Amino acid sequence: MYKAPVDEIAFTLKHVAGMGDALQSGALGDLGEDLVDAILSEAGRFATEEVAPLGDIGDKQGSRLVEGKVETPNGWRDLYHNWIAGGWNGLTAPEDFGGQNLPHMLHVAAMEMWNAGSMAFALGPTLTMGAVEALEKHGSDELKATYLPKMVSGEWTGTMNLTEPHAGSDLGVLKARAERRDDGTYRIFGQKIFITWGEHDFTDNIVHLVLARLPDAPAGTRGISLFLVPKFLVNADGSLGERNDLFCHSLEHKLGIHGSPTCTMIYGDGKFGAEKGAIGYLIGEENRGLACMFTMMNNARLAVGMQGVAIADAATQKAIAFAKERTQGKAPGWTGQGMSPIIEHPDVARMLLTMKALTQGSRAISYACAHAVDMGHAAEGEKAKFWQERSSLLTPIAKSFSTDAGVDVASMGIQVHGGMGFIEETGAARYLRDARIAPIYEGTNGIQAIDLVTRKLPLSDGGHVRGFIAELREIAAAVRASNRDGFGETAARLDAALDDLSAATEWLIAAVAGGKLAEALAGATAYQRLFGLALTGAYLAKGGLADVSDGKDDQRIALCRFTAENLLAETAALKDRVVNGADSLAVARAVLA
Amino acid sequence: MYKAPVDEIAFTLKHVAGMGDALQSGALGDLGEDLVDAILSEAGRFATEEVAPLGDIGDKQGSRLVEGKVETPNGWRDLYHNWIAGGWNGLTAPEDFGGQNLPHMLHVAAMEMWNAGSMAFALGPTLTMGAVEALEKHGSDELKATYLPKMVSGEWTGTMNLTEPHAGSDLGVLKARAERRDDGTYRIFGQKIFITWGEHDFTDNIVHLVLARLPDAPAGTRGISLFLVPKFLVNADGSLGERNDLFCHSLEHKLGIHGSPTCTMIYGDGKFGAEKGAIGYLIGEENRGLACMFTMMNNARLAVGMQGVAIADAATQKAIAFAKERTQGKAPGWTGQGMSPIIEHPDVARMLLTMKALTQGSRAISYACAHAVDMGHAAEGEKAKFWQERSSLLTPIAKSFSTDAGVDVASMGIQVHGGMGFIEETGAARYLRDARIAPIYEGTNGIQAIDLVTRKLPLSDGGHVRGFIAELREIAAAVRASNRDGFGETAARLDAALDDLSAATEWLIAAVAGGKLAEALAGATAYQRLFGLALTGAYLAKGGLADVSDGKDDQRIALCRFTAENLLAETAALKDRVVNGADSLAVARAVLA
Repeated sequence: MYKAPVDEIAFTLKHVAGMGDALQSGALGDLGEDLVDAILSEAGRFATEEVAPLGDIGDKQGSRLVEGKVETPNGWRDLYHNWIAGGWNGLTAPEDFGGQNLPHMLHVAAMEMWNAGSMAFALGPTLTMGAVEALEKHGSDELKATYLPKMVSGEWTGTMNLTEPHAGSDLGVLKARAERRDDGTYRIFGQKIFITWGEHDFTDNIVHLVLARLPDAPAGTRGISLFLVPKFLVNADGSLGERNDLFCHSLEHKLGIHGSPTCTMIYGDGKFGAEKGAIGYLIGEENRGLACMFTMMNNARLAVGMQGVAIADAATQKAIAFAKERTQGKAPGWTGQGMSPIIEHPDVARMLLTMKALTQGSRAISYACAHAVDMGHAAEGEKAKFWQERSSLLTPIAKSFSTDAGVDVASMGIQVHGGMGFIEETGAARYLRDARIAPIYEGTNGIQAIDLVTRKLPLSDGGHVRGFIAELREIAAAVRASNRDGFGETAARLDAALDDLSAATEWLIAAVAGGKLAEALAGATAYQRLFGLALTGAYLAKGGLADVSDGKDDQRIALCRFTAENLLAETAALKDRVVNGADSLAVARAVLA
Repeated sequence: MYKAPVDEIAFTLKHVAGMGDALQSGALGDLGEDLVDAILSEAGRFATEEVAPLGDIGDKQGSRLVEGKVETPNGWRDLYHNWIAGGWNGLTAPEDFGGQNLPHMLHVAAMEMWNAGSMAFALGPTLTMGAVEALEKHGSDELKATYLPKMVSGEWTGTMNLTEPHAGSDLGVLKARAERRDDGTYRIFGQKIFITWGEHDFTDNIVHLVLARLPDAPAGTRGISLFLVPKFLVNADGSLGERNDLFCHSLEHKLGIHGSPTCTMIYGDGKFGAEKGAIGYLIGEENRGLACMFTMMNNARLAVGMQGVAIADAATQKAIAFAKERTQGKAPGWTGQGMSPIIEHPDVARMLLTMKALTQGSRAISYACAHAVDMGHAAEGEKAKFWQERSSLLTPIAKSFSTDAGVDVASMGIQVHGGMGFIEETGAARYLRDARIAPIYEGTNGIQAIDLVTRKLPLSDGGHVRGFIAELREIAAAVRASNRDGFGETAARLDAALDDLSAATEWLIAAVAGGKLAEALAGATAYQRLFGLALTGAYLAKGGLADVSDGKDDQRIALCRFTAENLLAETAALKDRVVNGADSLAVARAVLA
């Protein structure tokens, strides 16, 4: 069973991702290390003791649509109410609306642990927090006063309604429509699919944020507006009023995250209410809905990245525990009685260490991204710009590298379990099934790569990414200067990886600037992975250098060396693909005709 | 829906894997190309028109245990009987027992197509064929006369009962026991798990081959005997007699291949028959059972490799079809109306071409392995030894590279489908769920790597593998000599990959010879993949060189170039891992403590 690695998480936050500096510099206000530790510890306890034990039943039962109502898995409603009772739903929300206004770093760390307990469960609150963020930034004071306190407390949940059958990655073509009414409200009509936690039995009300198009809206992405559409209308006194004209038509039958109801939502079908059309309230300006969504997109992407980290950690823990228990054959050098625990076999150890390295690497990248988000809020002027660029640059990498790691690590976890891994009762297969959505939703990893290459590399004319690589080179230099034998070839390997990263970066910056878009995009995914691998190497080295005398220093250095000497060499192939792969890809398209 | 790629399969058999030469040289007897084409065409038709349409229902319904009986999915019983009516079950079986004694190459090609239609369905006959092979090679004349004709026709099916809860990869510790009886029969007692198609409603009888231990047997693998244990005893006149004392206790709830019943079998529980103990008949000699199993192990491993090829092809076909239909966004250079088909996006094209390359590479490797099996039977003396060594060397690569490709390609297939890929109705997720068992069963891919490095590289003192690499170098030289621009950098890339293969091979041969087993095994999996990648490059090049003027020559060359310039660079990292990775892995084991 998953046990939240609170110490490892705290270490990564403080000594790798920048929280230590931020606490010292006062960038996080009066937040102190004691409070940080207490919050992490309690979030970890909740994940370990309350969420994780209900993960399997959520998978087995799933959420079911029964006579128009979604029934969640046994125990999940209580779990949710225990969770909001702990104040977790408002961790980063503004204090004005009952939130705690704590740094995003703490939030992602807590999200990691809850998602590791049950990704299907933790997904719901992630959506609510996204809705809170959009509403807080763009909603009218009246809307905020009516909805935010209850969404921050978790008394009501929130959803995001973007996708339609023909409009997924490309929202410009969505068809849901909104009609203006004289009273300043709107009537919403249309079908939305893949709506996470669109209907459930946790709370009395659900607040849907819905993208729709006004009759006179321009075509494409500049003609989309964002509306708040509650399941139940809210009376002036805050009590619940009439049922709004929307309902959950069906649930998807998915590969994983079975506990999370994925709804097809129908708006304005006339099923409820005297007049056809779901009553909606405009958020922000007309036709500016996509911009409203974008303000929360980065954090949502990072949140999905945390799901990758979470599954990777949970799958690794499970595989290590199994490999210590299960005996089979005799490993080279095994001198014990009878068969060896399979963890003694070099190939099994290789898988487990790779899993650990990818978990720790994606965790560090994601926390570093959250740190940049926090600093972007805390800092001012040029500093703020710097950190906003840093979080912009890191977001697609955190999302894609972590979610790919989630899938790869979960798949390796099955392999470590052998035949038992294929049996559902073992629980290893669930991790792969759950993890598999994360590289897809909230912008596919291919779209992250497009974003990275075409929008993030050009920040400050390429200056930001170049500066970042220079920072990473300092880590390699510090490893070299440390003269610690345990690092082995780390410095040289990291330098080589950063050379590859630098060369690929320059090639891509030039290609994008030169209008060679197809060529740049051909290698965008390879580049994204190259960046993630180089960062993994650098951050593991940074952790190894931290030297906190907690008895794990040697282990961190050993994992760093394993990563440098076993995983980093891949960067050369990835760089090669970026700078040399486009032509053959262009020619070979004929094969697909 | 899957459509068997008969032309591509025939091309690969004849022009890449060696069937053309074998047909010309008379090594395959009087088999002619017309018959080969006719068999492939009919096997493909059956897969496309009869198996594939029942694949989804098999997944959805699964096989269920109802009051002690296994009910297979709707339509599957008829499908099976149509399949055996076509004579497919005895394709490679000896003519003496009603088989057709056709080459193994044809068999693996047909297996690929049936598995692509439904891996869960095709898996059953694979087990029967394994049982036929073991019985034919090691059974007494009486046993053969009683059982083989009906197992060759498919009137009865066969199973292999090896695994027990504590004995998976390591069969030496199995506990099922056999007692001698005065009449020369045995009584079998024990529990076996993961028994594929151990019980079903296809046929009146099921012939179980069971590994068990005699009371006075030596410990370990030298004390295991093989028994034939029929579900129903067979009377002297061939009619079915009493029910034997064995039954299916339960079915596993698995990640995939739901249609295939995976049984826990109980022998000798006293549920059936007057006397406790399932009646069994010795196959081969007492305590030599594992040797009997090993004679069929290579072919079974190759058969599992075909499952990887099959899923990879089916998943690729599905993804390409989707990517042509689905429109989203505008790809660079897109000049059509509205959104582009997503196949126009470079990143999607990259995924699809990678899928195609891995499919074709693993297919070519597997067919080449089957060719070596055929030649090992057809040739004599030194030639026979050569081909037997070739099939021995290729088997672990064919099994592991193909099954890894199955998982990777199926996962990419989901990614190409975006959100739809996560919805079970789409069918893309099934491929990943089904494919995930193949790297595990019939010897995990890690065990294949141990076999490759410790038993196959040393063949003929390393001479065989060195000779093979020299053959592959000739392909690179021929590409260079061809002067065809379309190959791009193929010759140089292939040479580099073969340099890596050669260096890693020499390092491993020396390590194994020098007793550095832990060091050799640390990089065994990386080596196995390196070999598979290099072979993929070489075989795609061989196909490109074939120049058969079928209108696809340029496409084959283009896919070869894509592979060489986008995928082969990974071999350098893999070689590095083999020759440099062991030390850091050994040190980092402390992290797992």
